[in-house]
Amino acid sequence: MLPEQGRVIDLRAAEALRLQAQGATREAALRYASVVFPESMSAAIALGQRFLDTAAEAAAKYGDDASLAMDGLHWGAACDPSVVRDGLTFSKHIRQFHERMNISPTPALLEVPGYFKGSPWTVIGHEAEVQWPMRSERLDYELELGWVVGRQAHNITPEVARSYLFGVTIFNDFSARDLQGNEFAIGMGPTKSKDFAYGIGPWITTIDEFPRLDNIRMSVRVNGETWGEGDTSEMLWTPEELIAYVSLGDHAQPGDVIGSGTMGNGSALELGRSVKPGDVIELDVSGVGVLRNRIAKRAQETWWPERRRPFM
Amino acid sequence: MLPEQGRVIDLRAAEALRLQAQGATREAALRYASVVFPESMSAAIALGQRFLDTAAEAAAKYGDDASLAMDGLHWGAACDPSVVRDGLTFSKHIRQFHERMNISPTPALLEVPGYFKGSPWTVIGHEAEVQWPMRSERLDYELELGWVVGRQAHNITPEVARSYLFGVTIFNDFSARDLQGNEFAIGMGPTKSKDFAYGIGPWITTIDEFPRLDNIRMSVRVNGETWGEGDTSEMLWTPEELIAYVSLGDHAQPGDVIGSGTMGNGSALELGRSVKPGDVIELDVSGVGVLRNRIAKRAQETWWPERRRPFM
Repeated sequence: MLPEQGRVIDLRAAEALRLQAQGATREAALRYASVVFPESMSAAIALGQRFLDTAAEAAAKYGDDASLAMDGLHWGAACDPSVVRDGLTFSKHIRQFHERMNISPTPALLEVPGYFKGSPWTVIGHEAEVQWPMRSERLDYELELGWVVGRQAHNITPEVARSYLFGVTIFNDFSARDLQGNEFAIGMGPTKSKDFAYGIGPWITTIDEFPRLDNIRMSVRVNGETWGEGDTSEMLWTPEELIAYVSLGDHAQPGDVIGSGTMGNGSALELGRSVKPGDVIELDVSGVGVLRNRIAKRAQETWWPERRRPFM
Repeated sequence: MLPEQGRVIDLRAAEALRLQAQGATREAALRYASVVFPESMSAAIALGQRFLDTAAEAAAKYGDDASLAMDGLHWGAACDPSVVRDGLTFSKHIRQFHERMNISPTPALLEVPGYFKGSPWTVIGHEAEVQWPMRSERLDYELELGWVVGRQAHNITPEVARSYLFGVTIFNDFSARDLQGNEFAIGMGPTKSKDFAYGIGPWITTIDEFPRLDNIRMSVRVNGETWGEGDTSEMLWTPEELIAYVSLGDHAQPGDVIGSGTMGNGSALELGRSVKPGDVIELDVSGVGVLRNRIAKRAQETWWPERRRPFM
């Protein structure tokens, strides 16, 4: 990515050019380049240092020859996590969320880092439209960072967690606020209130560009107007603690995304507002960039379950 | 599978033999057979009718030549879901669970089918050991069916849901009961209370062998003693409703497993009991078979988060 120049590098093309200059046939060069720079970002990250080294070398030698204008590009999601996980770590958001909902926060929040799991099949990228969730009248965004896992992590400790991070992306945890009531009450975690769109992008900034993770500035704009801003300083649980906790008993995979949780003032709910079809949501994160998504029109609804009669 | 003969068919080998008899080279025959019968069951199911037809033909012609004794086999999980989902559909279990926990069921259970999402990276197969979850003193099993999705499903209705089912397997939703308290209170769904082992197997019975889904008999044995038995008749939500609901906004994939939810008397919790290291849990489902797992010894614990001080 060369965002400051308005250009991106087609790494697969750059690497193929480099190999051909070293004597490879075009077919062999493309075959090799497709393995190091596959369609799946998770597969690329899983290659570890070979992926990063080859990217740096290819970009340095043939980046100019293989660069494209950013304008007019079609953006995929910045990565393709096997599992979407999303934490709850910013104290200010937790406080304001509970005040707005007029409920007391459970003491359980102080015991363990809460997180939910989302469907990886509703991940969308930069500039993609957000499908309006069925039966909802109250749609919201959530301003978050996405911690991108770099290596398989199982039962790790916070002390080593940073070395398991590949990079940082922007994560918009779109939420249907009116569907959350039943889902909270059932206690099995969000389903239809979240599994319609997770915005991830526009790209990933590698972790070496973030000497600290507690001073990243973020803001959200709706139709160009700033609705919230802040930074990552007020954390109940550190990113390292969240990642280590995720790894307990479970296995985080290269390319998995763990949402930081919503920043204070990072949701419209905290402001008593919501968004509507056609609105453009921009999440702006210093050191990463801007993730922009438009809310789609409502679609025809197909089916919704019929309420059951009490059985006890 | 030829469980009644104590044998299984290596379908890849059978198909390779069949192709070679028709003139294919050994290499080409194995290459083709590996595509139709890949390591991933999800990838096989995604091939649709070609997978089923080829399996039937290969088994009919070369099944005997390519069969193996079941004794001594190493079992993988019956499938490799991209997402584990697990519902809550049996009224009797819901009633007994709430009576035992001394809590009232939320009316939200009558509004929409509840389900949670589990990590696909903790799926285990028949005869695999169940890792003891950190910080837990109270481990349980849950007797469930696993509905195996056959085709991509998005916004489908219950009327067509059966045609999206590939088959039925057995699902053991192992649960750390003492970790569930904090996780229910946080409301983001189960994490460490569930994401350590989902037993799926021993195999999948294709859906054509189940004319009805509401009269399947099930039982659970612990160390050979029957602890619970029943059938699928008392459902709050039908399998078709659960699958259709999962597909709303989200995308179910071939090979995904949707747990039916625990059967009445299908957990030790309902009996005031729990299981201990070394116990052998067998789930027996008519028309499928027996899924057997042993509870492992406790392992050394690495790290657990430190409780936070109240911040509001």
